Amino acid sequence: MSFPDRVHLCEVGPRDGFQFEDTFIPTDRKLEAIDRLAAAGLRRIQVTSFVHPDWVPQMADAEAVCAGLPTRSDVLFTGLALNLKGVERASANGLEVVDLSIATHDTHSRANANMPLDEAIAQGEAMVKRAQALGMQAQMNLQTVFGYRDPGDTPIPHVVDMARRFARLGLESLALSDSTGMADPVMIRERVEAVQAVVGDTPLVLHLHDTRGSGIANMMTALQCGVTRFDTSMAGMGGCPFIHGAAGNIATEDTVHLLEQMGMATGIDWRAVAEASLTIERVLRKRFPGKLHRLLQRAAEQPVA
Amino acid sequence: MSFPDRVHLCEVGPRDGFQFEDTFIPTDRKLEAIDRLAAAGLRRIQVTSFVHPDWVPQMADAEAVCAGLPTRSDVLFTGLALNLKGVERASANGLEVVDLSIATHDTHSRANANMPLDEAIAQGEAMVKRAQALGMQAQMNLQTVFGYRDPGDTPIPHVVDMARRFARLGLESLALSDSTGMADPVMIRERVEAVQAVVGDTPLVLHLHDTRGSGIANMMTALQCGVTRFDTSMAGMGGCPFIHGAAGNIATEDTVHLLEQMGMATGIDWRAVAEASLTIERVLRKRFPGKLHRLLQRAAEQPVA
Repeated sequence: MSFPDRVHLCEVGPRDGFQFEDTFIPTDRKLEAIDRLAAAGLRRIQVTSFVHPDWVPQMADAEAVCAGLPTRSDVLFTGLALNLKGVERASANGLEVVDLSIATHDTHSRANANMPLDEAIAQGEAMVKRAQALGMQAQMNLQTVFGYRDPGDTPIPHVVDMARRFARLGLESLALSDSTGMADPVMIRERVEAVQAVVGDTPLVLHLHDTRGSGIANMMTALQCGVTRFDTSMAGMGGCPFIHGAAGNIATEDTVHLLEQMGMATGIDWRAVAEASLTIERVLRKRFPGKLHRLLQRAAEQPVA
Repeated sequence: MSFPDRVHLCEVGPRDGFQFEDTFIPTDRKLEAIDRLAAAGLRRIQVTSFVHPDWVPQMADAEAVCAGLPTRSDVLFTGLALNLKGVERASANGLEVVDLSIATHDTHSRANANMPLDEAIAQGEAMVKRAQALGMQAQMNLQTVFGYRDPGDTPIPHVVDMARRFARLGLESLALSDSTGMADPVMIRERVEAVQAVVGDTPLVLHLHDTRGSGIANMMTALQCGVTRFDTSMAGMGGCPFIHGAAGNIATEDTVHLLEQMGMATGIDWRAVAEASLTIERVLRKRFPGKLHRLLQRAAEQPVA
């Protein structure tokens, strides 16, 4: 087994995690979480989404969040955009990198973005070019790479073709998303290797949901394929867009704890992340599925015998 | 990546899961769960523990559970014993295989079994011999193989020596337990290979707790080391003896779902296990950490859009 010496995590809790919450999280609470995540050592944080507030009310304060970000040159703050308007808002808010996202399954594209995939790809290319014209770099996220309705139902040639087309435009990075948590280690190896073969030096990111409990196992396989960048979410916040209330992303603190134990440096203090997670749980009066923040809480309540 | 064609799961929920519950589960509810697990395709189920009821009140009905087991020649029902008295009770209850368990860390042995490790090993050997004299086969479980207080603090030479000594006695199987959920894939490979080198044909079983979220990843590595037998627990029930309320074993239904998706046959219907899990949750009015039973429940409440 060969693992990298260093792994880079992008915290997506403030976007992918928060957006699934029905209760509006006050902007200052969002900013507090972002501050604490940065202080914990996260060096890339996806802080909001530039979507219409009617669609995702939780993200209605995108501008206020961007305006309140801590002044730290050591942390890259990014935001998600799903159309040209979103790209322009990201630029207007001073972001250096905008995260874009696109369906890879035609049925999904029609259901979710209300357009056939060909049209979505053309729009995606226009978004990358617009971001670049505005002086930003772009990450492109390919959604449901490992399955939409059923595991593996997104055709590999489709994913590979899209990866090649977007990589050619000069991306900051290309993210492969297991939006539905359907991947398994065999699928990860097959699809990551197929994409690696066509994207040249474009850095790959894996965005793994833990819907079925295989997120960490999938990360282990991706690490062995040479992937060193992952999206993670504090406390494992987040959801599955197709199954309300299902588990979210792999948890930042659990991921950090395991990677560090295995000798891979992350630069992140898992305890500090876990404490931020416990604060968010208190704000929202609910519990998220990550393990380490819960262990930290229980250890405080009841010291080990 | 090389995976076996077939994987054998032993359901430990009715013992390792139930014993952590403060609310006494009525015997007929226990038997109903066991029946349903057998009907779901589990071919080995650890149904109880022969411990003193003052110590584990949940297991006070061990005799009644054994008396009420379904008559099925295709399912092996086992029980756990921690001393000679327990071995004798297992035999008196007609079990063909008794599961034994022993500490591997001296501090743990003194704290938990109230005896130094040397004495515990001698007692363990006496238990195996007594079981055999009574016409039973014995599985020996080595506890905290991957860490007791800290990851890896159980010395490998210690574990290897104990594995060799017990294997020589002619075990039905040898189980390596990550009782504290501290293992990681690197540790799994190192320790499984070290044990495999000294136990000859003795079948190995891995008993993995998911305390820190790495249980499924650890199983994936063990599979690649050639291990084909795992203990799992319905709904991921169970706990960590040192951290009250921490996550339990890897969940049977999640494990089955993933293995089958990857092409490994288990003979188990994950949906039937998940339905049994939902019933136990209703009996206990609580939720366990497994994922698939929750997805099944949510899909019933809110069909996929």
